[in-house]
Amino acid sequence: MFSVKIRGLYVITSADFGWKHEEIAEMALKAGARIIQLREKRMPARKIYEVARKIRKLCDEYDAIFIVNDRLDIAMLSDADGVHVGKEDPPADKIKEIFDGIVGVSVDNVEEAKEAESYADYVGVGPVFKTTTKPDAGEVIGLEGLKKVKEVVKIPVVAIGGINKDNVREVIRIADAVAVVSAIASSKDPYKATKELLEIIENETQL
Amino acid sequence: MFSVKIRGLYVITSADFGWKHEEIAEMALKAGARIIQLREKRMPARKIYEVARKIRKLCDEYDAIFIVNDRLDIAMLSDADGVHVGKEDPPADKIKEIFDGIVGVSVDNVEEAKEAESYADYVGVGPVFKTTTKPDAGEVIGLEGLKKVKEVVKIPVVAIGGINKDNVREVIRIADAVAVVSAIASSKDPYKATKELLEIIENETQL
Ligand code: NI
Repeated sequence: MFSVKIRGLYVITSADFGWKHEEIAEMALKAGARIIQLREKRMPARKIYEVARKIRKLCDEYDAIFIVNDRLDIAMLSDADGVHVGKEDPPADKIKEIFDGIVGVSVDNVEEAKEAESYADYVGVGPVFKTTTKPDAGEVIGLEGLKKVKEVVKIPVVAIGGINKDNVREVIRIADAVAVVSAIASSKDPYKATKELLEIIENETQL
Repeated sequence: MFSVKIRGLYVITSADFGWKHEEIAEMALKAGARIIQLREKRMPARKIYEVARKIRKLCDEYDAIFIVNDRLDIAMLSDADGVHVGKEDPPADKIKEIFDGIVGVSVDNVEEAKEAESYADYVGVGPVFKTTTKPDAGEVIGLEGLKKVKEVVKIPVVAIGGINKDNVREVIRIADAVAVVSAIASSKDPYKATKELLEIIENETQL
């Protein structure tokens, strides 16, 4: 099992709001975030790989966990700590057989979470609240749905979907970690946005 | 170095002409082809992975080489013999550091071919002739351009781009292998199309 715990704030970068992936990563790390996921679906793989190398270096400076979304090849080639996959990606159980880093899996419900537990190092659950960033995110599960998943699995549960400083407090009371995209990436000041979220999370969890 | 030689007919599957990838692969293998590349750029990676598993099994039955285009992760997860990458994919020299299978690289000219020789197991060179299958295939290099590359590298040279039964004879006199897509995949009878190409190639090279 990957010893480093998936806890607290889990920052997902996005280039959809004008910032570069590496800019979001740097500001979030400076503000104290220690888990960064690179999620890029449009750029050519060579570009994603180059960005991944930059974020790997940044995460090394802050001793942070670096995870690549979708692409196991880019995760391996950029020496990332892990890969996060969903239903449209190669299967996580197969990935686990050839990759000794963190394997995170997106699940939509309790059954999928229990099934993933046998090979995943953490599950991503959501959307907890309505979100614009991931149109195909499926049905909103709310805090109730999140709680149901948290009750059936022992591996870390990462909540995702519409999480921001107004609702993060309730979420972190249930989930082990909270993943945010637009709350930071769409902000005029991602450093400040990260700080605010961290304060609420730390306050709630006495990290 | 991968001991198995990249020689003769190199069949690239395509789902753009109505056949499924695995159907093209099966018919080509039945006709005697012994190198199959899966090249799919639009399907979700989970689907590409599933198709790759099917073609891996087919290639095992015929003791053929199976290569995946672009995706090192799918190549590794489907136990392919190799991966073929170009400028838009993660870099081949890095891939070679973590992958012990065949690594093929697309090159456009002599300089790129010489540079690739230090890490690639073969180079793909072209387009030798005008081709519709790969709109962004770059400038046509013709038989002259192909010859120039063949003269400067020792690793196998795979010619690609607009190759069919009318011009394959001249090409195989220069290149170690000839890669075809539409000549087989767009045919009403891919088995027959493969047989015809193989006969000309075998006749030329006394395989
Ligand atoms: Ni582990």
